Parts: sequence; C-alpha cells; structure tokens
Amino acid sequence: MDTKIKELLSQLTLEEKAGLCSGKDFWRTKPVERLGIPSVMVSDGPSGLRTQVENGVNENDSRAAVSFPSGCATASSFDRNLLRNLGEILGEEANNYNVSTVLGPAINIKRSPLCGRNFEYLSEDPYVAGELGAAYVKGVQSKNVGTSVKHFAANNQETNRFSVSEEVDERTLREIYLPAFENCVKNSAPTTIMCSYNAINGELSSQNKWLLKDVLRDEWGFKGMVVSDWGAVYDRVKGIKADLSLEMPYSGGHTDNDIVQAVKAGTLTMEELDEAVSHVLEMVLNYTEHKQSGVFDMDKDHAESARIAEESCVLLKNDNAVLPIKASAEKVLFTGCFAENPRYGGGGSSKIKCYKMTSAVDAAREAGLGVKYVKGYNEDFVTTTAALTDEAVAAAREADTVVVFAGLPESYETEGADRTTLDMPQVQNELIEKLAAVNKNVVVVLHNGAPVAMPWVDKVAAILECYLGGENIGTAQVNLLFGKANPSGKLAETFPLRLEDTPCYLTYPGNGRTCVYSEGIFVGYRWYDSRKMPVLFPFGYGLSYTTFEYSNLKVSKSAFKDSDGVEVSITIKNTGSVEGKEVVQLYVSDKTGVEVRPEKELKGFDKVNLKPGESKEVTFKLDRRSFAFWNIDIDDWYAPSGKYIISIGASSRDIRATAEVDVTSTSKKAFTITPQTTMGDMLRNREMAAIIKPEFDQACHAVIGDLSDEEFAKLFPFTKDAMIEMTKSNPFRLNRGKNGITMEDILKQVERYNKELDK
Amino acid sequence: MDTKIKELLSQLTLEEKAGLCSGKDFWRTKPVERLGIPSVMVSDGPSGLRTQVENGVNENDSRAAVSFPSGCATASSFDRNLLRNLGEILGEEANNYNVSTVLGPAINIKRSPLCGRNFEYLSEDPYVAGELGAAYVKGVQSKNVGTSVKHFAANNQETNRFSVSEEVDERTLREIYLPAFENCVKNSAPTTIMCSYNAINGELSSQNKWLLKDVLRDEWGFKGMVVSDWGAVYDRVKGIKADLSLEMPYSGGHTDNDIVQAVKAGTLTMEELDEAVSHVLEMVLNYTEHKQSGVFDMDKDHAESARIAEESCVLLKNDNAVLPIKASAEKVLFTGCFAENPRYGGGGSSKIKCYKMTSAVDAAREAGLGVKYVKGYNEDFVTTTAALTDEAVAAAREADTVVVFAGLPESYETEGADRTTLDMPQVQNELIEKLAAVNKNVVVVLHNGAPVAMPWVDKVAAILECYLGGENIGTAQVNLLFGKANPSGKLAETFPLRLEDTPCYLTYPGNGRTCVYSEGIFVGYRWYDSRKMPVLFPFGYGLSYTTFEYSNLKVSKSAFKDSDGVEVSITIKNTGSVEGKEVVQLYVSDKTGVEVRPEKELKGFDKVNLKPGESKEVTFKLDRRSFAFWNIDIDDWYAPSGKYIISIGASSRDIRATAEVDVTSTSKKAFTITPQTTMGDMLRNREMAAIIKPEFDQACHAVIGDLSDEEFAKLFPFTKDAMIEMTKSNPFRLNRGKNGITMEDILKQVERYNKELDK
Repeated sequence: MDTKIKELLSQLTLEEKAGLCSGKDFWRTKPVERLGIPSVMVSDGPSGLRTQVENGVNENDSRAAVSFPSGCATASSFDRNLLRNLGEILGEEANNYNVSTVLGPAINIKRSPLCGRNFEYLSEDPYVAGELGAAYVKGVQSKNVGTSVKHFAANNQETNRFSVSEEVDERTLREIYLPAFENCVKNSAPTTIMCSYNAINGELSSQNKWLLKDVLRDEWGFKGMVVSDWGAVYDRVKGIKADLSLEMPYSGGHTDNDIVQAVKAGTLTMEELDEAVSHVLEMVLNYTEHKQSGVFDMDKDHAESARIAEESCVLLKNDNAVLPIKASAEKVLFTGCFAENPRYGGGGSSKIKCYKMTSAVDAAREAGLGVKYVKGYNEDFVTTTAALTDEAVAAAREADTVVVFAGLPESYETEGADRTTLDMPQVQNELIEKLAAVNKNVVVVLHNGAPVAMPWVDKVAAILECYLGGENIGTAQVNLLFGKANPSGKLAETFPLRLEDTPCYLTYPGNGRTCVYSEGIFVGYRWYDSRKMPVLFPFGYGLSYTTFEYSNLKVSKSAFKDSDGVEVSITIKNTGSVEGKEVVQLYVSDKTGVEVRPEKELKGFDKVNLKPGESKEVTFKLDRRSFAFWNIDIDDWYAPSGKYIISIGASSRDIRATAEVDVTSTSKKAFTITPQTTMGDMLRNREMAAIIKPEFDQACHAVIGDLSDEEFAKLFPFTKDAMIEMTKSNPFRLNRGKNGITMEDILKQVERYNKELDK
Repeated sequence: MDTKIKELLSQLTLEEKAGLCSGKDFWRTKPVERLGIPSVMVSDGPSGLRTQVENGVNENDSRAAVSFPSGCATASSFDRNLLRNLGEILGEEANNYNVSTVLGPAINIKRSPLCGRNFEYLSEDPYVAGELGAAYVKGVQSKNVGTSVKHFAANNQETNRFSVSEEVDERTLREIYLPAFENCVKNSAPTTIMCSYNAINGELSSQNKWLLKDVLRDEWGFKGMVVSDWGAVYDRVKGIKADLSLEMPYSGGHTDNDIVQAVKAGTLTMEELDEAVSHVLEMVLNYTEHKQSGVFDMDKDHAESARIAEESCVLLKNDNAVLPIKASAEKVLFTGCFAENPRYGGGGSSKIKCYKMTSAVDAAREAGLGVKYVKGYNEDFVTTTAALTDEAVAAAREADTVVVFAGLPESYETEGADRTTLDMPQVQNELIEKLAAVNKNVVVVLHNGAPVAMPWVDKVAAILECYLGGENIGTAQVNLLFGKANPSGKLAETFPLRLEDTPCYLTYPGNGRTCVYSEGIFVGYRWYDSRKMPVLFPFGYGLSYTTFEYSNLKVSKSAFKDSDGVEVSITIKNTGSVEGKEVVQLYVSDKTGVEVRPEKELKGFDKVNLKPGESKEVTFKLDRRSFAFWNIDIDDWYAPSGKYIISIGASSRDIRATAEVDVTSTSKKAFTITPQTTMGDMLRNREMAAIIKPEFDQACHAVIGDLSDEEFAKLFPFTKDAMIEMTKSNPFRLNRGKNGITMEDILKQVERYNKELDK
C-alpha cells in the first residue's frame, strides 16, 4: 500500500471510509473534499461509451458516442490487435469525457445461445474470451483509463440474474467459467473486476470470499479493485470481508451504515475496511493523478468502426462464388429493413446513442453502386404486407443478385431477459424462402447477437453473419459484399441445428432459484464434437474469398515434460487470387484416458494476412496448462503422462494437420491412494502404473494361472477377459481376510505407495 | 421384535452375535447350535437358482437348474402376472433345495446401455422396474421363500463397482434410482434388500445410514434385513450402525472381531448390535419355522421357460408381414450359430448351468418344420470363413425366408465389466448385410442383454429381439416366427441410434473413482423425448401380428386435488385377425413450468389380451405421486398446481390419445420465501402467485406507467417487454433503499408471505 493511501486512511473517519465503499450516485464515486479525494466517473461500455449527460433526467440519459461492433462481432475477428486497438480508441474517448473506468470487457462464456446478453460476450471458449478480453484491457489501459472485466463469474443467464444460484462443480468453473478472467488478470492487470449478480453454489458473487479473495486476489494475484455489478450487493459487510471494495450505485446510505455498525460491533475489523477503501483510493488516484488528455475524432472513429466490423463479419456460405458481387456487371437488389436501419448493438447497459449511423443502403449510395432497395417487410421487423412481399419478390426476379438483410429485432434479445427460441421472425424466414424460390443468387446478411436457426440454409447461395456490427456496419457490409474487403471472421461460437441440441437445453435457465450446470465442462464445441453431433456451423468456422493451404506441421519435440512445453509451427499459404486473412486454430486432445475430457480444446489461435501466393509460418507455444485439466483430487492443474494429439485446423471441424506427442507429468501423484483405490485406477496413471503393474499381473495369474479357456469356464461364470477387467476393479480393501491380510497391512501398503509417489 | 428373538438375544454371547452378522461360508449363515439357531442357505438368482453342489470344489460349482429368461427379457413382457408366476416357480425350486432366499430381483435402472450387467436389470424406467420387481417378490415370497431386492442403490456400472462413488443429486436418486426399490418395499415387503457395492456421493452403500436406515427403514417402513452384496463391506461397525445386518460371504473373522472390539470399546452399543442380529434371526427363523415342501417338475418348468420367453420377445420390425412364416408354403433357412447354441443368460452370478437346452434348430426339428440350417459363422460368434459365408449366402438365395440368428457373445457383456460399444461382432453384421443383399425376406433374431447398433436396420424385413431368453428360447422363437404365438413384448428401454446419443455418454463410467450423473433425471426416454432426438427404437415400442385401436379416453374429472387423484380409462380393440396382447402405456407431462421436468413420464401400464374384434376398457388410477417431482426445497414429493397432459399410447413415441387435466396442489408452499426470492419465482406457483400478483402489477406500472413505446425507448435502453421480464427477476432485497425501505421491512414482508402460505 503506498504512503499516500496509508496517510489518507489514517485521516479518514469511519463514516468517510464506509462512504467510499459505495457510489455517490449512479455513475460516480463519493469524494472526500476535506482530504482532496475527488469523485470519479465510470461509464458503461464495452462497445462504445455510454456517459451520462450532465443533469440528464435519469441515469440512462446518455451522450451520443461512436458505436463499435459488439463483443459477439469483435470476437469473431480472432484478432488480438484489433481488440487492443478498439480498447485504445475507447480509452481516448474516456479521457475526453473524464471517464476513469470503462465498464468492460464482458467476457462471460456463452453457455447457451439463449442468454439474452450473449451479444456482449465473446465466446463459448474460455481461451478465446481470455485472449481477446486481455487485449481489450491492454488497449484501454494504455491510455491510463481503467477497465472493469465483467461479470465475475458464471453470469450466464438473464433470468433471475440477481438471485439465481448457478450450481457448478469446481472443475467446470476452473476449466470453463474462470479461465478467461484468470487470463485477463495475469496478462493484462485490469484495474477493476466487476462481480456478477448471480450466486455460485449458493453464495452471491458480491460476497463470495472464495471467488473474490481466495481465487482472484490470492491465487491469481489480482492487484485492482472489485466493484459490484449495479445492484448486486446483498450483505454489504460480508462483501467487504470477501474483498468487494466498491458497491455501485448509491445505496441510499443503508449499506454504508451497515459497515459503520459492523465496525462498531466488532464484527468487521478496521483492517478489513481499510483494505477495501485502499483499493477504491488506488482506483481514484491512479486515474486522477496520471490523467491523460483525451484527443479523439469522432469521424475517424466512425471509420474505424467499419474497419473493425469488416474484420469481424463471418462468411458462412458462398456457393458458386456468388460473393463478392461484381458491381459493374450485375443488377443488385437490397431488401429487408435492416438494410436501411441495421441493428448495430444490443439492448441494455451497452446500448449507445449513436454518433452517426451508416446503413448498407447509405453506403451503397455513397459508393455509387446503383443498388436497388425495397423494404421487404415492415419496419418493426416482424410484420409485413402482401404488397411488400410482392414488391420484393418481383424485384428479386429482375435482379442478378438479391441481398436480403435479416436478423433479430431488439425485442428478441436484450440484457435483462433470455431468449426462448433460436427462431428469427417468421416474416423474415418466409421472405427469404420466397426470394430463394425466384432467384438462385440470394445472399442473406444477418444482424443478431447470437445464433439463429436457418431453415432456409440450403436454399440460399450465401450467408454473411454480421452480428451487431456497430454504427458503421453498412460500410463494412458493402465493402465485404462487393469485394473491397475480404471476410476473415470465424465463429467464436457454435451455431447449432436445433435448440434441443444445445448442451444445457434441459436445464437452462433452471427453475428460477437454481440452475444446474448439468453439461459440466462440455460447453459449446466441447459438447458437439465430443458427441459427434451435426451442427449448422461449427466453432472456428468462416469462409474467405481466397483459399489457404496448411503444410509442414512441426513440433519442436515429440516427447517432453509438461513443465517444458513444446513449440508447434505450421505454414499457411494463400492459394487463391486475392489477399486475405486466415484464423489458424490449434486444438489439443488428451488420449491418456485418465480423466473424462472433451474430444479437443482450443489452446492456440493466430490470424495471418497473406497476399496471393504468399506463405507464412505460424508458431504456437504450448505449456503445461495447454495439456492440463483441473484435478479436483490434487486441487491443481494436471497434465497426465501419455499421448496427446495436437490438431491444427481452419475450424473445429476442419482439421488440416495433426501430430501425436508424449507428455510426461511432473506431478507424479494424480490422487491419494487409499484402501478404496483399485489397481485399475493406478494402472491408468503412468507413474502409478509403474508401481502396481507387477502386483496386478500377479493377481491375474493367481486366478487364471495356466487354465485353458475351457478349464476356466468350468470354474467361473465369467470369461478370462472379464476376470482381468474385474481384477482391475478390485480395491485394495477387498484383500482383507485373504491369506491373513489385515486392514493394518492394507493401510501400510497404500502408505508405501503414496510415499513412493511423493518422492 | 417377537418374544423368541428377544429371548435368543438375551442368551447369545457378544461373539455369537457378532458372528451372526456375517456368513459361515460363501452361501450360508452361521448357526448357533447350542441355541438351536440353524444355518440357512441363499442362492443366486434371479432367472434360475444357482445353488452350490454339496462339497463343490468352489463356490461357483453349482447344480443344474432351469434357466428362465433374464430380466432384460421378462421386463419386456410388461406383465405383472408373468413376473409373479416366475417368482412362484423359483420359490418352489428354492424350497426343494432348502434355499431360504433367492438373491433377486435385480432392479437397478439402466442408466447406460453399456452397463455390463444390464441383462439382469429390468428397465430404464423406475415405474416399470418397481412394478415388475414387486410382482416377482410377491411370487417368490408366496412360497415362504425370501427375496433379496438388489442392488440398493445406484449400482449402474461394473467398472470399479466395489469402490466407485456415484455422484447423484438427491432429486435424481428420489425420482430415478430409488423408486423401484421403494415400490418393492411398500407393495411387496421383501424379506431382504441387498446393498450395492458402490458408494453414493462418497459413502459406500454398505455403510450408508441415510440410505439404509433413514430412507429404507424409517421412511419407507422396510421390515426386513439388509444383506451386503458379496464383498461390499468395508467398515463393518459403521455398517451395523447404518442398518446392514448381514455381511456376505464369510469375512475371515476379521469383521466379526471388529464388531466385538467396538462393543467392548463402547463405540457400538449392544442395542445397535441387537438390532442387526434380530433381523438376521427373523430371516433365518421365518424360513425354517414355516418351511414349505418344494414340489416342482423340471420338465414343466422348462416348458414354462419357453412360455415366459414368448411373452417377452419384442418384434421390432415386420415389413410386408414377412412374419409369421407360413410353414407349409415356404422354404425357410435358419443361419447363425445362435440358432443351435442360443445365448440364454448372462455371465456372472446369475449364470445357470442349464437343466436342458432347446435351441431354435432343436425346436424346428421337433415341430417337423423342415427348416434348413447352415452355421453362417464360426461357433465363437466373432470369426468366420469364406466357405461359411458363401454357404449361407447360397442357401439364402434359394430360400423364401431367411432367419439369421445373431447377437452378442458372452465375452461382449458380463457382470464385472462394462461394454465399450453398442456394436455386434463385425462378422455377424457383415453376414446380415450379405444375406439382405440376396434375399428381401431376411428376419434377424437377436440374442443380447442390452441394446445393440443395427447398421442393417433398413435392409432387413423383420427383427425379433429375444434378449437372453432362457434355456428354452428355441421353442419360443419357433412359436413366434411361425405364428403359433403372437409377439407382445415391448421395449423397457430405448434403443439409441448411436452410443454418442446416450444421456451419460460423456461421463460414463467416469474416471474410475467417481462417476458424475450429469444427465440427472433425464435417463432413457426422459432424455430422448425431452430433446426430441431420433432413436433406433423407442421405449415402450413393439409390434404384434395384429393391430389395436385406442378409443374413448375418459378421465373421471378434469380438475382435482393432487391428494384425490384421478381415474383414466381407455378402450382397446383388436382390429386384426389374430388374438394378441397389447401393452397400453400412460404417460404424464407437467405443463405448469414450475420445475425442470422430463417431457413425459410413465405412470401406468397394463397388458390386455384380445381376441380378434374384441374390445376391453383399461383403467388406470393416478395419485399425487403420478404428478409429483421430488422438491428439494421442501424435501418431499410435490405436484405443482396447474395443467398436466395425460397421454395414452402404444409406445413413448406413439401416443394415441391425450387429455388435459388441472391439478391443485395440497402443499401451498413450494419453497420458503426469502429476500432473495423474485416475483417471478412466486408467479410460477399458483398459490404464491395469488399473493404477489397485485404487487407485481403495481411494480410494472411504477416503471412503465402510461408511457408509449416511444417515450419508454427514450428513457430506457430496454423494450417494455424486457422491462416486465426484468421485473419478474427482481428479488425483494433489491427494494432496500428505495422509498426508505429497510432490510427489516423486507424481512417482515417475506415473513408475512410465508405465514400466509403456511396457513
């Protein structure tokens, strides 16, 4: 704790300290004027600043700002630099408006496509969410503006979000719901973390000591401040003890008083309170004492918004190279109201009042492309008239290419409520079917924050997924559709065929009070790939106007210790005729059979830009963690000794090269051996197998001996193979009473094994 | 406790008491000769008696006995009378051999088709397993022979069965894994229950007080004795305290001594020991003091075995009425070694040395049917030669109908080891494909203890599932194939398309030490139907040589209290030309939305025999339990108020009639209201909704008022609908600080609600 903060703590009264632990109003911390402690403002993000107008009528009355693509879109870029760049832009805007902290990135895992807030989140994969989240944090914080990585943790549904208890086992938390936060903390040192509304296994995140103190601060080394999500606080004193420093927003004084009373009653120590206050002071002073001037140009940022969107859109289908459209030679029809009124962002705290909106119709007009536009359906996106349909169909008959702009209206997905279906408005699905019936070159351009069902997928020629692409999405769409830009996004989430196929279909969003994470670690492609299920579009998938060849996969060594790790490289070549970018993905599959694990997991990705004919080598570094699972028996990451497959691919379902490697664990002991341990348990772990193998062989021989199959069949109602399997299933305690073996003998035996493995 | 037992307890020494708590040898209890307490013998069942030969070389050296169809088969009869009849036969045999207790029925739930012991078990559905298990118990016990309902509980895998901890939440235990046992205890009063090897949530069943004492004895009112599975005992003293009376087999004196030492040390009271001993004495004396003479005729039982098999086989496919075969007019080929050497039972403790084996080839010869037989593949069932294949294919070309006998060899499924695949031996699948290529009338007759994959399903004309049909299965097969008997079995388990589709595919059989029941209550058809997944053959499915019409569904009342229940009846008519039996099934679907529940659950079944043109009315009585789920918040069964659909069908996927009913719960309170409770939680329960609805409407109005959509959009970044949904998600505690509301106010408010509901 630095001297200045120590000094301030010594001067603050109990009441002032308590007051610093909650907001002054909806967006500001409390000042302590007599000591020169200023009030600082925070602002909703993460895809644009939602700063409150001075003297606005309410807390939602915000200034116009440039709206950038939402998290669902930017994650599809798979581009760390892009996210960092977005962060830098927001940091500059924040400095301009005296915003100390941008309330983002939002990096919760997309457990279900129904989560109403998925559009803000990045991925179903924790590695993607962590890498891109950390890049964003670095960008914002490079401008000395703070971030608030949110919502920590397991905030995966909007239904009853203030109270629902997410029932998740620790391994699932460690492998799926926490690593993105861990990655941000360890690699980008965010100034604040925002705790989530929900409870985890019965304890609200705002007062969860295990989560905020034991894991976040002590284990991961978090140095910043924990702030509550707006209204997340229940037991304020318990929250202080759990390391929740700042409650937002203003609490009416009730919880400040709780703190004061608790200190007076001795149930909260002054040291505990000081710890909380010190983090608030650090946050306030770090911003105000090193404030950078904010220089930004909204028109430049508007252009940047389109550039970011271009990198983020995902080309899902492109039969017969219908895209890019050759502007000069074709009659092009745009239809569907999203073409003139694109859905650029989601509803809720991230909603931006746009500085300027450029639709595809605007952009095409500006580019002089001579595109025809008809509405296709009503401006509410969900109703139509026969006249509108007829007009669109008639125009489609005349066109060479029909681009239909479709997607979800805001009422279909928003913060605060979960979706109940994957379906788009029926009116839009019907329009697409009708257009496809009269024109073979129908291109569907989608505006949605999460996967939708596509009953017409086989009937249209091309699909461009634009997600919620920010205020200048129209420019990006026109550039991509007409080939001025080449699509390079890939899906950071699986598009399932049916809602019923989704991992948590049966248990999401629970009964209101609890939600059981029945699918465990099998979220997203971990589920679909492990169960070999057909999907609409797989994780990591996306097309380009060019093609890429993968060759020359190399691993720096084929056998290594987990602690040493390995380097993997592969050469990517642009084999097409236009410049383009490829997202190269590395997956690891555990073949040791020691633990239940997903078929494969993403452990590396990189995005390379290649001119036609150009080749580049992409290199990945894998470490112990790349091979490890969370072992609840040793309460640590554990990479079992044995074989792993490293797969490099263009998507989770398009693997181009594989290599087998052998990893040797530096943790000899996978679990503690007890009288309940079976020989089979030990045989599965290479280090343990070395000890038990002779004894196992002896045990099998003792029963089977030299008996022929026929002789054996006379003696036992099992086959020999079954007997060997059964021997593997025998725990040591079963030997009690055999040949005079006592329980003491068995306890000594397992103690000896444990000691040998502990060496 | 009766006087005689009290007197014996007063005369037994501590050492004698301890001794009575474990076996004398592998199959017998210890006598206490000085007090006239005899030794009694038990015998493996449940599909035939495996009694040890006097002076046999080892405990597996057993007498020949009549082998009856295994549980997998008899369950498919869906016939309570048939199971009762089987029990009576076994009871008579047991008396003849002085067997005090038949170690059966085995009624564990088929969680995965891979469980090596599924062939002994009855169903994936607890209602079926419970109803048929109870019928079997009644049959055996009508002869004053005891039963041992096994394996209590959650013994759903063979891998590491002695030590694995089955990690199952209580609701899943209550709804899936315990009810069959509960049904047997409450409706058939079994003399003993056999505890399982495995642990449940960390505690071995042999020492699980919650399971054996709290639930089984105190809650369900079990009056009998708990015996350990052979070798299931670990901590004997803890077992005595948990209500495990008899350890089997002989324990080498070690655990007897543990008991003696514990009593001497005061860690086990004499009362606790007496309780255990009293149950052993009751078991011994009940048998010996009322012993009935055993009269049975093995040839008669051999014939009964075929009759039982006829009722149990399931006709899965019968295109173009290829079955029954018209013996007089057709050239019929039998091929496949199972035709002369049928697999009649599974490996392990239930394996019988058959009294007499009648194969299909034998039966056809005896019936003078002039059937041709060629082997088709080698006698090991897994290899073949070109000559054998060619011979079969050539014969198939000449035949009108080809019956290929196929299935799993014993090495593919046995007690003690789990399967790892659904596949049959490749050689057999290939033979079937080759036969189907040359003859359009291929009938596949299957011998297997659990579902298999059928890659040839669309290429063959008919499939007759015979499971493991006992020693006279050949007679049953010939009678069914040639129309002397009409198939009436239905599947008591789902046949999935792929192993990857099975509910517990990702987590079965776990990592050796634990197995997480990730699918929860969604076992079998509860999974497939809730996820609307295609299956190979659904639960409850089976064809007949005749057809049935369902009509005139009646419910005795359309709205009723859960405690009153309802009567449901339907008329079934045989609309075909031969006599036949139909298994009529009743399913209930909860439409209240209060809790996560399966799409539907079986709550009634009946089997009716109908002559051509005949009609009968079938009546079902539904009670509170038929509509209830296990509510962990009130620790009791709970049927929420609201709408339910009652469906009557010929299978889970062939519903013929439905009725909607309205149930009113007599438990007003679904859970305790706290400051964390949301208005939405209360609105979901009819009784709670009545209290909160006015307040909810007021809360919505307070925010939305009379604002138009446009005015609302200016003020909030949400739609009105989202705001209403969000209001439902607001817990009471969120009101703190608003309008001066204190936490005390909120606590008083929820206390008031709770009181009102408790009235």
